[in-house]
Amino acid sequence: MEKIALIVAGGSGTRMNTEIPKQFLPIAGLPILMHTIKKFRNFENSLRIIVVLPEEQVKYWKKLCKEYRFTVPHEIKKGGSTRFQSVKNGLRGIKPGCLVAVHDGVRPLVSRNTVKRCFVQAGKTGAAIPVIDICETVRMVDCTGNQMVDRDKYKLVQTPQVFVSDLLIKAYKKPYNDSFTDDASVVETIGQKISLVEGNPENIKITTKLDLTVAEAYFRNVT
Amino acid sequence: MEKIALIVAGGSGTRMNTEIPKQFLPIAGLPILMHTIKKFRNFENSLRIIVVLPEEQVKYWKKLCKEYRFTVPHEIKKGGSTRFQSVKNGLRGIKPGCLVAVHDGVRPLVSRNTVKRCFVQAGKTGAAIPVIDICETVRMVDCTGNQMVDRDKYKLVQTPQVFVSDLLIKAYKKPYNDSFTDDASVVETIGQKISLVEGNPENIKITTKLDLTVAEAYFRNVT
Repeated sequence: MEKIALIVAGGSGTRMNTEIPKQFLPIAGLPILMHTIKKFRNFENSLRIIVVLPEEQVKYWKKLCKEYRFTVPHEIKKGGSTRFQSVKNGLRGIKPGCLVAVHDGVRPLVSRNTVKRCFVQAGKTGAAIPVIDICETVRMVDCTGNQMVDRDKYKLVQTPQVFVSDLLIKAYKKPYNDSFTDDASVVETIGQKISLVEGNPENIKITTKLDLTVAEAYFRNVT
Repeated sequence: MEKIALIVAGGSGTRMNTEIPKQFLPIAGLPILMHTIKKFRNFENSLRIIVVLPEEQVKYWKKLCKEYRFTVPHEIKKGGSTRFQSVKNGLRGIKPGCLVAVHDGVRPLVSRNTVKRCFVQAGKTGAAIPVIDICETVRMVDCTGNQMVDRDKYKLVQTPQVFVSDLLIKAYKKPYNDSFTDDASVVETIGQKISLVEGNPENIKITTKLDLTVAEAYFRNVT
């Protein structure tokens, strides 16, 4: 099956209090989004890479690529006003029978093994997502108060979330719902079961300045 | 009410693959445990600080204090073979009517405001612990498979966990149970309700080399 990476980079800079959208901020000397693209290119050279960007950022991105002499081949598609709409736009033109990895542009620290595990498992079951254990004690809060729960039963979800394209295309025809916090939650609405594979702890989503600090440290020490 | 910090530092170096127990590893030029002690001293100068250490580490710790000219006053008590037993040992000699903050020695990044919120709330309700939101999508795994849950209902628990000493002393007389992953879970067994207050995201528990990297970065950029 043809493998595709659909990298969604829809962020503005609002949560960072920066003018530059977070996916363009540099870590270890290179904009975050370039690190992310490189991860997928290095995973498999024949992988098709599609980057979904807000329309108003496309010009800036092309300028950045020139500036950094970034020549990793990738297609650019225009995003929508929500992540859901951006993924939907990115799926346009993708044929059935492919394996599509939907990935957050601001997760440059995904490991090669995480990507591999997701593709391999999705090839078998149709849908696979990476998860990690929760190390802290967990409490559940409801209207009656709060109580400890068994943390071993809960997992934190990352990306890439890999699906046979037929499933993604079908699921993304459903109307948008507030409970869609990731792609697996969309694909589940058509009755598809989701396989869980092991993620890597440093595969964080960079959304705050604190995350940026952590990511910098990881790049220096881990990669 | 008299305020006491009971700092539990029972770790060996096994998860770090280091010979030095993790609480003695330096970040930003100072052993982790010294940072932690300083945080409580800086919170309130009259605070009584008790550090619980494995018996075989006490000599080394005293040597370290000399080496680093660490003069913050603190008492040392000998730990047990489990965290539960260490807290129990630490409680010996503590009178009713105090407010006791049980804190992990390897959480040097707790903020002054987190400590304050816990003491203030425990003074009102008897028991208060700091929690933070979960930013990732969460899945629950059981024997039938896995499903997404509403992450807003779940919180990650940190320390210091602050209690009126009467409650702690009573609860720690109960026999040990595998479900005791923190002090709140022990105190709950005597029917006490636990108040949740806001923690601070960088208040991580340093247990792996990756955590050490993150903590180093936080110290450089956040504190």
